[in-house]
Amino acid sequence: MTVFACNGIQAAGIAAGLKKNGNPDLGLIYSETTATAAAVFTRNVVQAAPVMLDRQRIRSGRCRAIVVNSGNANCCNGENGMRDAVATCAAVAQALNIPEDQVLVASTGVIGQPLPVERVTAAVPTLVADLSEDGFERLAAAIMTTDTEPKCIHRQGRIGDRTFNVVAVAKGAGMIRPDMATMLCFACTDAAIDAALLDTMLRQAVDQSFNRITIDGDTSTNDTVILLANGSRGAAVQSADDQAVFQALLDEMLLDLAKWLVRDGEGANKLVEVRVQGAGCDEDARRIADTVANSPLVKTALFGEDANWGRVLGAAGRAGVTFDPGRIDLYFDDVRMVAGGVGCGAEVEAAATAVLKQPELRITLDLNDGAGKAGVLTCDFSLDYVRINADYRS
Amino acid sequence: MTVFACNGIQAAGIAAGLKKNGNPDLGLIYSETTATAAAVFTRNVVQAAPVMLDRQRIRSGRCRAIVVNSGNANCCNGENGMRDAVATCAAVAQALNIPEDQVLVASTGVIGQPLPVERVTAAVPTLVADLSEDGFERLAAAIMTTDTEPKCIHRQGRIGDRTFNVVAVAKGAGMIRPDMATMLCFACTDAAIDAALLDTMLRQAVDQSFNRITIDGDTSTNDTVILLANGSRGAAVQSADDQAVFQALLDEMLLDLAKWLVRDGEGANKLVEVRVQGAGCDEDARRIADTVANSPLVKTALFGEDANWGRVLGAAGRAGVTFDPGRIDLYFDDVRMVAGGVGCGAEVEAAATAVLKQPELRITLDLNDGAGKAGVLTCDFSLDYVRINADYRS
Repeated sequence: MTVFACNGIQAAGIAAGLKKNGNPDLGLIYSETTATAAAVFTRNVVQAAPVMLDRQRIRSGRCRAIVVNSGNANCCNGENGMRDAVATCAAVAQALNIPEDQVLVASTGVIGQPLPVERVTAAVPTLVADLSEDGFERLAAAIMTTDTEPKCIHRQGRIGDRTFNVVAVAKGAGMIRPDMATMLCFACTDAAIDAALLDTMLRQAVDQSFNRITIDGDTSTNDTVILLANGSRGAAVQSADDQAVFQALLDEMLLDLAKWLVRDGEGANKLVEVRVQGAGCDEDARRIADTVANSPLVKTALFGEDANWGRVLGAAGRAGVTFDPGRIDLYFDDVRMVAGGVGCGAEVEAAATAVLKQPELRITLDLNDGAGKAGVLTCDFSLDYVRINADYRS
Repeated sequence: MTVFACNGIQAAGIAAGLKKNGNPDLGLIYSETTATAAAVFTRNVVQAAPVMLDRQRIRSGRCRAIVVNSGNANCCNGENGMRDAVATCAAVAQALNIPEDQVLVASTGVIGQPLPVERVTAAVPTLVADLSEDGFERLAAAIMTTDTEPKCIHRQGRIGDRTFNVVAVAKGAGMIRPDMATMLCFACTDAAIDAALLDTMLRQAVDQSFNRITIDGDTSTNDTVILLANGSRGAAVQSADDQAVFQALLDEMLLDLAKWLVRDGEGANKLVEVRVQGAGCDEDARRIADTVANSPLVKTALFGEDANWGRVLGAAGRAGVTFDPGRIDLYFDDVRMVAGGVGCGAEVEAAATAVLKQPELRITLDLNDGAGKAGVLTCDFSLDYVRINADYRS
């Protein structure tokens, strides 16, 4: 058994010919027994066919398999898109001899091009043959788009005298922002967890991880996070204490993956936390943090390693939140750049420049006006971001 | 008299040593008689000292001079910033022997660095000596930051048997978005217009020009548009017909300047109108247009001349407006890419690619759900944008 295993759950990843470069583009998760399932989807008004299908199917709280393709978002394809999503699931259900309505599906890639569904269905036998308990890394590779590396993590926890495993894979790269984006994440555990509780715990974990990251402020039509629990390990999450153990582990794993997505954001060189405190309320703090974290001028300054704090204040000032600019303190890590709305002068520049040169740093804005606070993770905005996105489809 | 002249109004532009490269950085407008005046300022919560000072002084509706510096925003400098703004005006008032409270001031450049006010005041005699009726192009050059060319336009109109002139200069480049941004615009006319009417007409003209453009979604702390009318030409704007004549001329001029700002946006290669129609109301249309026009993924696709309409739909879907994605039509100029929410297939790609190669184009999103409409002007997001902004302060 490898470090990525989860009892009774197998994974696979193969190349089905959806990507022009021949890279792996079709993945599968298979639970040997019926798992409980919870999912969170994009809030974008425009939603891909697989998202629409999964929204219906997840209501049962039951799942046996998840099939995922990269290279094509299967979005804005009208009725054909839904037909192809259903056909993909049907092919998997048939090959695995499981109920069709317990197969979920996810897609990521270019929007608005017909899914070559015959390539997918033709590849399903090979995909099923590739299933194994150590297949999660192959799965992680098969769901990549502009990611530079597959993202797969594993943790073990203990409830009472029984250990349990959680394995999670994710892909991100572009179109990432708070409230999710073109990101997919699939997590599996062999603990036993009731579907309703699973849903509650997944939502909390997503809220403090994937909903706190931004790469370019764009959200996607395909964002999907699914959590399966098949109970095959025997550990059952029941008491409040059990729940706390599992929640802590899940929170940590999804936050690790979220940070990984930002660090591997398109063209990203830096992981930057934008923290706002002293706001009138948490929501105000969040609006300001989001606006700063998405500001192209702030993000290009981060790329240039330029301690241009004026851009941070300029972005904060357009967040749609009223505050007194004369009370603001601003820090790069622990270096105070602004005190009471006034720049601290040239003497702090050298220290600030040293902070900016780090691969990870924190920008803190203190409005000194209340208890509201929020934190968002972002990255710099680089020449490579433009290069990657100017010719993504070509 | 040159083509840029306006009776009784002189302009100047010189180098005062605020810019490291020695380029012109100090400009002046001087009305030989007291002019009526109106102004519109940034709505950013963080506002520069000159904006705060002008907000007070414009209440009188009277102005004799406007002094403008580039190379330093005089923002977030606390009490010293206000002291320096006042001192700048005082030096001009003294040199011109005019009331100090009829001098307005504007600044543009880096935020949070002390204004070297002694260089400004020392240069005022030279600045005043440079005043002439043909000085508007020198003024336009002195207010540039990352603009690649000075922006100055002139028009003549006629009311009854009298002609009048309007001259306007502007600077833009970065930090441009709807509701203005780091842009300055100064317009002068020798028509006679009551201050209250001037204010009404300026607001309308700004609303359909500078408030409809975006370069990077960031707004500035220093945005200022000022309109002076000194009446020295004799033409008086009084009747509704007169007003319509002047309004049409002003609208056209400010829209021309607004388009020029976008075309000369930082790193911009394309002027793109994002038009949304068929929305439930104009405000919904505007929110969607703004979101599409500011989307980094849409703008990098424009740079790559890639007809990636999926990104347009993705951005529209996250604008916070509810609509039926199954009713959307999308066009690049007149090429329909999406009909009823479904892509029109590979056959329209060639035509779309030809549209994308043009220096100016229009993206139209029709929600087919109502009469709401809006248009926003944007540009592509290029490698040069990142280059320019990564090392702006260095």
